[in-house]
Amino acid sequence: MARTIQSLERAAAMLRLLAGGERRLGLSDVASALGLAKGTAHGILRTLQQEGFVEQDPASGRYQLGAELLRLGNSYLDVHELRARALVWADDLARSSGESVYLGVLHQQGVLVIHHVFRPDDSRQVLEVGAMQPLHSTALGKVLCAYDPVAHAELAEAEREAFTPRTVTAMPDLEGVLDLTRARGWAADVEETWAGVASVAAPIHDRRRMPVGAVGITGAVERVCEDGELRARLVAAVRDCARAVSRDLGAGRF
Amino acid sequence: MARTIQSLERAAAMLRLLAGGERRLGLSDVASALGLAKGTAHGILRTLQQEGFVEQDPASGRYQLGAELLRLGNSYLDVHELRARALVWADDLARSSGESVYLGVLHQQGVLVIHHVFRPDDSRQVLEVGAMQPLHSTALGKVLCAYDPVAHAELAEAEREAFTPRTVTAMPDLEGVLDLTRARGWAADVEETWAGVASVAAPIHDRRRMPVGAVGITGAVERVCEDGELRARLVAAVRDCARAVSRDLGAGRF
Repeated sequence: MARTIQSLERAAAMLRLLAGGERRLGLSDVASALGLAKGTAHGILRTLQQEGFVEQDPASGRYQLGAELLRLGNSYLDVHELRARALVWADDLARSSGESVYLGVLHQQGVLVIHHVFRPDDSRQVLEVGAMQPLHSTALGKVLCAYDPVAHAELAEAEREAFTPRTVTAMPDLEGVLDLTRARGWAADVEETWAGVASVAAPIHDRRRMPVGAVGITGAVERVCEDGELRARLVAAVRDCARAVSRDLGAGRF
Repeated sequence: MARTIQSLERAAAMLRLLAGGERRLGLSDVASALGLAKGTAHGILRTLQQEGFVEQDPASGRYQLGAELLRLGNSYLDVHELRARALVWADDLARSSGESVYLGVLHQQGVLVIHHVFRPDDSRQVLEVGAMQPLHSTALGKVLCAYDPVAHAELAEAEREAFTPRTVTAMPDLEGVLDLTRARGWAADVEETWAGVASVAAPIHDRRRMPVGAVGITGAVERVCEDGELRARLVAAVRDCARAVSRDLGAGRF
């Protein structure tokens, strides 16, 4: 039975460290944050730098994430079957709904956005592919937790921050939300993550009927909701899209 | 002096292997491609999988790149100063030129696209952030080679494929192209990489006058060129953009 390799685990911890918080760190910062001797930390950083995973600012000597991660992340997207199948359907959904579309998968204790179609108007928008969304408060996250037992377990352990007064954070209350999600086949987020923003999402299943991701739309609460409820037309468009992608992945019709 | 760490180098080689060519590989494929014993390869793959850098398909047992790479790649973009400074200027360039805009940096033996603004029409376009472009044939690549000695050294060693009948591949000829690029302050690619496509790019310098990247536009040769020459209006727009970003990075005016 193969063991895991300590130097690799430490290298991964360094990359996670550089991906969060300060993001530009000196050797001493890295060593002390991970409880490593300076020499040990330097050997790992040096190798990560040689491989392009880490870059060192020549002026300050501080380390930051390297370009090779972007190249590899792009290759991850290229090979992702769900994303490839969903591209066209997501474009259609953005066009029919007039809102931005997100495709997400479970990653660690959150939703990783693997595709994002801009709202089809001429406004300036920031691409969020590669960004994480919380499991407990977003429509994508609730869908994943309702259908994927692994996501549900992560939800129970995750830190559940109250982003707005409407965020549901207690597990017993969230269980009720997930029951409702399963009963309806879709989840909503009405100002539970961002004030003024609402979203609706539905699950995508593969040929083995496994929940592999979620697709949804996000937009201004004034457009997406009517009298405090999600517009039925938008819910139907999202569910149609999720079904179409699932069918494309080989899921059965029933 | 810290040494590099063999298991880390091997792990990086595995990720590069999974990023190219077949992209879904079994344990034996990985082990034989890298000349490792199966047990050694398995230990590394297992650790990469545990850290989210690699995923294993449950049905086939084959390995592919993992979601953590996308998350880290996105964090790399977030921390990238050149990209942050260039965002607004690149949007303006797309609007004024009517063409798609690319921002690239040297990575390994190519140009890594770190920002891409779609051509401002309603056509379907594929985001190319994280994709690589060749040094010898693209406008971005020629700019980097003309101004950055490291890029120039990589160009001399790179495989220089003839993508079209117009691609220049011999180093003596390319040296002439780079001399012209330095003399004019910009580079062109008229159907040297893709038939029917032309591009123009200019260098971005930082506060230490170091060449840190290139920005350019790409579009149909019928729109970008006139009588076989790049339209002066577009060349001026690209150079204005490169100067603006350089100024934003602290480069002097002269």
